[in-house]
Amino acid sequence: MERRQMLHIPGPTNIPDRILRSLSQPLINHRGPEFEALLSTCVVGLKKVFRTENDILIFPSSGSGALESAIVNLFSPGDTILAACLGVFSDRMAEIGEKHGLNVIRLTMDWGKAVKVEEIEAILNKDQEGKIKAVCLPQNETTTGIGIDIEGVSKMMRRVGHEAILVVDAISSLACVPLETDAWGVDVVISASQKGLMLPPGIGLASVSERAWKRVEQSTMPRWYWDYKAVKKSMTTSQFPYTPATTLLFGLKEALGMLTEEGMEKVWERHQVIGKGVRNAVEAMGLTLFAEKEYASDTVTAILMPENIKYKELAELLRTRYDIVIGGGLQKLQGQIFRIGHMGAIHFMDMYAVMGALEMALVQLGYEVELGTAAAALAKTFIKK
Amino acid sequence: MERRQMLHIPGPTNIPDRILRSLSQPLINHRGPEFEALLSTCVVGLKKVFRTENDILIFPSSGSGALESAIVNLFSPGDTILAACLGVFSDRMAEIGEKHGLNVIRLTMDWGKAVKVEEIEAILNKDQEGKIKAVCLPQNETTTGIGIDIEGVSKMMRRVGHEAILVVDAISSLACVPLETDAWGVDVVISASQKGLMLPPGIGLASVSERAWKRVEQSTMPRWYWDYKAVKKSMTTSQFPYTPATTLLFGLKEALGMLTEEGMEKVWERHQVIGKGVRNAVEAMGLTLFAEKEYASDTVTAILMPENIKYKELAELLRTRYDIVIGGGLQKLQGQIFRIGHMGAIHFMDMYAVMGALEMALVQLGYEVELGTAAAALAKTFIKK
Amino acid sequence: MERRQMLHIPGPTNIPDRILRSLSQPLINHRGPEFEALLSTCVVGLKKVFRTENDILIFPSSGSGALESAIVNLFSPGDTILAACLGVFSDRMAEIGEKHGLNVIRLTMDWGKAVKVEEIEAILNKDQEGKIKAVCLPQNETTTGIGIDIEGVSKMMRRVGHEAILVVDAISSLACVPLETDAWGVDVVISASQKGLMLPPGIGLASVSERAWKRVEQSTMPRWYWDYKAVKKSMTTSQFPYTPATTLLFGLKEALGMLTEEGMEKVWERHQVIGKGVRNAVEAMGLTLFAEKEYASDTVTAILMPENIKYKELAELLRTRYDIVIGGGLQKLQGQIFRIGHMGAIHFMDMYAVMGALEMALVQLGYEVELGTAAAALAKTFIKK
Amino acid sequence: MERRQMLHIPGPTNIPDRILRSLSQPLINHRGPEFEALLSTCVVGLKKVFRTENDILIFPSSGSGALESAIVNLFSPGDTILAACLGVFSDRMAEIGEKHGLNVIRLTMDWGKAVKVEEIEAILNKDQEGKIKAVCLPQNETTTGIGIDIEGVSKMMRRVGHEAILVVDAISSLACVPLETDAWGVDVVISASQKGLMLPPGIGLASVSERAWKRVEQSTMPRWYWDYKAVKKSMTTSQFPYTPATTLLFGLKEALGMLTEEGMEKVWERHQVIGKGVRNAVEAMGLTLFAEKEYASDTVTAILMPENIKYKELAELLRTRYDIVIGGGLQKLQGQIFRIGHMGAIHFMDMYAVMGALEMALVQLGYEVELGTAAAALAKTFIKK
Repeated sequence: MERRQMLHIPGPTNIPDRILRSLSQPLINHRGPEFEALLSTCVVGLKKVFRTENDILIFPSSGSGALESAIVNLFSPGDTILAACLGVFSDRMAEIGEKHGLNVIRLTMDWGKAVKVEEIEAILNKDQEGKIKAVCLPQNETTTGIGIDIEGVSKMMRRVGHEAILVVDAISSLACVPLETDAWGVDVVISASQKGLMLPPGIGLASVSERAWKRVEQSTMPRWYWDYKAVKKSMTTSQFPYTPATTLLFGLKEALGMLTEEGMEKVWERHQVIGKGVRNAVEAMGLTLFAEKEYASDTVTAILMPENIKYKELAELLRTRYDIVIGGGLQKLQGQIFRIGHMGAIHFMDMYAVMGALEMALVQLGYEVELGTAAAALAKTFIKK
Repeated sequence: MERRQMLHIPGPTNIPDRILRSLSQPLINHRGPEFEALLSTCVVGLKKVFRTENDILIFPSSGSGALESAIVNLFSPGDTILAACLGVFSDRMAEIGEKHGLNVIRLTMDWGKAVKVEEIEAILNKDQEGKIKAVCLPQNETTTGIGIDIEGVSKMMRRVGHEAILVVDAISSLACVPLETDAWGVDVVISASQKGLMLPPGIGLASVSERAWKRVEQSTMPRWYWDYKAVKKSMTTSQFPYTPATTLLFGLKEALGMLTEEGMEKVWERHQVIGKGVRNAVEAMGLTLFAEKEYASDTVTAILMPENIKYKELAELLRTRYDIVIGGGLQKLQGQIFRIGHMGAIHFMDMYAVMGALEMALVQLGYEVELGTAAAALAKTFIKK
Repeated sequence: MERRQMLHIPGPTNIPDRILRSLSQPLINHRGPEFEALLSTCVVGLKKVFRTENDILIFPSSGSGALESAIVNLFSPGDTILAACLGVFSDRMAEIGEKHGLNVIRLTMDWGKAVKVEEIEAILNKDQEGKIKAVCLPQNETTTGIGIDIEGVSKMMRRVGHEAILVVDAISSLACVPLETDAWGVDVVISASQKGLMLPPGIGLASVSERAWKRVEQSTMPRWYWDYKAVKKSMTTSQFPYTPATTLLFGLKEALGMLTEEGMEKVWERHQVIGKGVRNAVEAMGLTLFAEKEYASDTVTAILMPENIKYKELAELLRTRYDIVIGGGLQKLQGQIFRIGHMGAIHFMDMYAVMGALEMALVQLGYEVELGTAAAALAKTFIKK
Repeated sequence: MERRQMLHIPGPTNIPDRILRSLSQPLINHRGPEFEALLSTCVVGLKKVFRTENDILIFPSSGSGALESAIVNLFSPGDTILAACLGVFSDRMAEIGEKHGLNVIRLTMDWGKAVKVEEIEAILNKDQEGKIKAVCLPQNETTTGIGIDIEGVSKMMRRVGHEAILVVDAISSLACVPLETDAWGVDVVISASQKGLMLPPGIGLASVSERAWKRVEQSTMPRWYWDYKAVKKSMTTSQFPYTPATTLLFGLKEALGMLTEEGMEKVWERHQVIGKGVRNAVEAMGLTLFAEKEYASDTVTAILMPENIKYKELAELLRTRYDIVIGGGLQKLQGQIFRIGHMGAIHFMDMYAVMGALEMALVQLGYEVELGTAAAALAKTFIKK
């Protein structure tokens, strides 16, 4: 039977019906009063999700485009930045920086390990001349399913008094795990539509602090599409320099409504409980979590492939027989791990089907585990005492 | 988080996305060529689902309306019919007959018991004068989750050579369990849109055999809306006596496409496996199936309420915490049983969440069962060896 | 290019996008709290549209089904009713009555003529014995595009003091032309979803006064599906005797929201202005209105076919070249007239395309009229001075 | 009454229902086989629309982003390009070039005038050293409603044998007016989703010839998001460097299906006829076309504001009373002109309402014109003899 696949890749995520319907609204004039009202509602809602009073900029782009926007607006060719490299997507930030002529200090970790606050602190302390213009960190790295303690890094940076700004890639963490842009003092937060915001891909987001705006003023990097000053002006006048992705804004309005109705704390708690349940089920089945456990991500879980089982066979079986789509290992992890996304419009009961199907598929492929083990572990985590 | 509820009442059922989208098509002229093509596609498809070359009649009505249509078209006041009464919905057929002046022989069973072929045979054998004009049976009674062996009854009726026609209420069984209208020789089959056809409610259906049309000719019952002859004429000329439910026909076309793509045998097998899985999980959890097991329905399962647990609390907990909607006992079974629907656009993995939530909810309400039991029983049924 | 046809038959009508989207919502449990809230919202809204505090009954049926419901609930076999017969749809009321054994006094008019208050008054005055149990009138007869002065008849009936109840078929007039059920004292109003309510077909409606309920108590007509008492009970308990057309109720909620936002007076005025514009354009083009002008309908306009032009050619040309669908003459008027619907979700600017296309099509078929004539007449009617 | 606005700005355009529905499909895995099939269908269809065998690149961006992509991939800092500047959007190409360090020879025209083939030819002939790396032209400039003879320029460039590549901005002309990328030899064509492709904004497109790929190899411009080589690789492996705008690809598939069903020649002819009709109506009403008539655009018409009428009042009246949205003059033309878009999913009958409303609104604001004039002019253009 044709049915909606359960999309448990590390994003994009399943889109709720209410949002899907909103995407089929006829277009409106992006220079008219209806659009102004729509945009204004979206910005107010985004500020609640980002927990910030900083400017929010909206781009018709993927999240990676928003990453590039940070590089070309905040820096000048030859500038030095520190970038934590924990996987494909945090490497990307470094790569984009280098492409645009930055000197990138890569703080590269073994994949599966988190960067600790102290490691960053040590580097900043050594930088007596203040060469490092920014610390660039992912809040969540989906390659390995690891998180970074952004709050800890923020506090440390204030404590040590280094001039670097803090740029956080929250693409796969916004509206999933706690982020307090203003309370923690994060200068630039980059995100996108297709993860915690429960939307299709196509919107890139950036929040920009006062401190960061000063850097924008100093930047000599050539840019046009990504120009923060032009987009900022648009956000207030609703006169975009280019046509905005109106349809996704219809969806964004719905998504922000849903998040507000649930409450951000509840949203975060939901992801936390589900993440815990998934990890418990993984371990109960005798499988091995790939990422350092204290820093495990609550939005995606990476699991070592059991011996003698091939990723392609597992993924194919899950997709064709169980209608569940998971992700594989990227680059050097190809075939080594598999990844289960659990972010966005997710219900803890969804994981029953996902982990139950995983259990059955593994057994079919020769893995030994007692049927029902995953469900028992989930239930023990989820049941209200 | 707002999400689509898992609707596991005994119908209506969850509607697939593809069908949902088809329901938002703009109307077309019900007297124009586009409508003719639509109707013709629907009739061809319905014949494949009903497994018949008989006429198919489509009413803008609920399934119960189609039941009434059979009464007012096939009989005349004072006629005698035999009606199996196994629950609320098969009682209804008898009640409608009586309201319209028929003499109804009610073959009433204890709720939870099926009518056996021999019991009907005995009654027909006693009817030497041939007073019984029709045998009216539900293929599936959702009140208790029981099925009737329609194939057996059909063969028996041919064997004993009684003149009665066979009228089958297949509202909650069509496109779920095997029905071979022509091969078995069922004269009139009544059904509706909102169960196995995976549509919203609003379409009633009847298939009418040559033998049944002769009864229609003889009927003196007053009727207008339900008039089979008028509707039959419409079905071929596309000139309906009244406005058809065009939007549901858009959906019907999609649904028939989906059923054809899957294949009726696969559809039936899917329901059979899921029904078996649910019953296995129920028993593994130590719960008691309400219906006679050899005649258990593959579309709905009735379960005795465990001692000391109130239905309302169970249903409320499932609905509010787990977003799963189940059905309760009707009439005298209120509070005695609960019912889980598993028909239509259902995937066996859906039952993981349903039975897993049931397990957790029961434990929360004080029932003793080891967590993971339901999932283990489902997995043992579903896993491909 | 594939595009939405402009549906200008005398109903169903073009459905607004907002309503179309609401029709693709996933089903909810029709016995649960969400449904109760939905139904209650619909009933409150319908009362505002019907302008009544009487009970409103909702049927999963076409409008004709609701007409039959009135016959089988209000009368007993052998009862006498007076029915105005002005066309196919008011004839239908008489026909349904006769099918169910009523003695119908048909007040048949030449097609295109309205029934006047005095004509009904004369008949009632002659009925010294009070044999006439009801006066059955259409507020609007789409066959010919004529209206009846329901307000006038109501007042007259109160004045002459006859015991007959007043039953009005408002299927093609509700939410289009003024109807004041309570203020005028209309006992039973029958309507349906697919005209002024801007929905797909599939819902039949009846409003029933205290006086009418007394007739229901006395009625001995056999009935089950249409039983007013059973449905009334359902309307308050949300426990329908059979599955309601949930999807259409989603749409009804939207439609009632739209009507309320616009305001019934504005809705009526919009139809009145458009009706006037269409008639002005028809006459400006030298065409002949079929219906008596003082009683012309504001929801559908019937026009005499010009000499030497065939209806089929005109309709085909409009449909294939202009994507506009109009209606033809029914029964004896086939080929004699054509009909343009202008009810429901209609904007006066829509008539520019419709009448402009008509003008061009007529010219193509040999009719002589100066291009631009229709638009000029419309503009003169619509322009705000 | 709430209704879909008639969006007659110079893009985005009205989206057909069939496409709107396709936008509400649940997401699929952008690295799975369903996506591969979707992408492949889109590329095959786009090649038919672009009339090319060149590579087609798809970006999650607005059309302006695709313009920037051409600059940063085809050139190196210090390169010289020739850019025709006829309005805001062709100025933009020059501006983006300058931002990225190019030496831009601006061939600036009085707004409302087209660039002629000879003017470009003269400049190329003077460039004996072959400094000019590219000729950048808009096929259509929406600021003033003017077109450029791309075919003529292409042929001339081949004739004179200059090495410059030809880069055409076809954002507001693709799938509206004839474009023969391969037959004419256009090296790079830039376009976007929200005009002739009848989609929401959010997809930028580029077709790149063999000659252009050689320039990409030589380019030293820093880039990451816009990198043609990375995206080209993605287009064949379906392994995008960043998440594609999947939802818009669902819509693109539908749009390409619609264009193919209609046939590109019919699509072009439709726009041509409508453009002519609009201009005829404008002139019949005594209004003045802003753009040079022989080069008038068939997708947008700019009209001089009549004396004593303010643009804001006209636009507001059209929007609030007639539900029609038009565009105003940009930059120095603000208040001087108004613009009517007629591209994409447009039917010639749509222009009846638009031009009829314009006529009425102008009369309301004091302009003198006989009502019906616009319709007469349209009808004379559209009627089939």
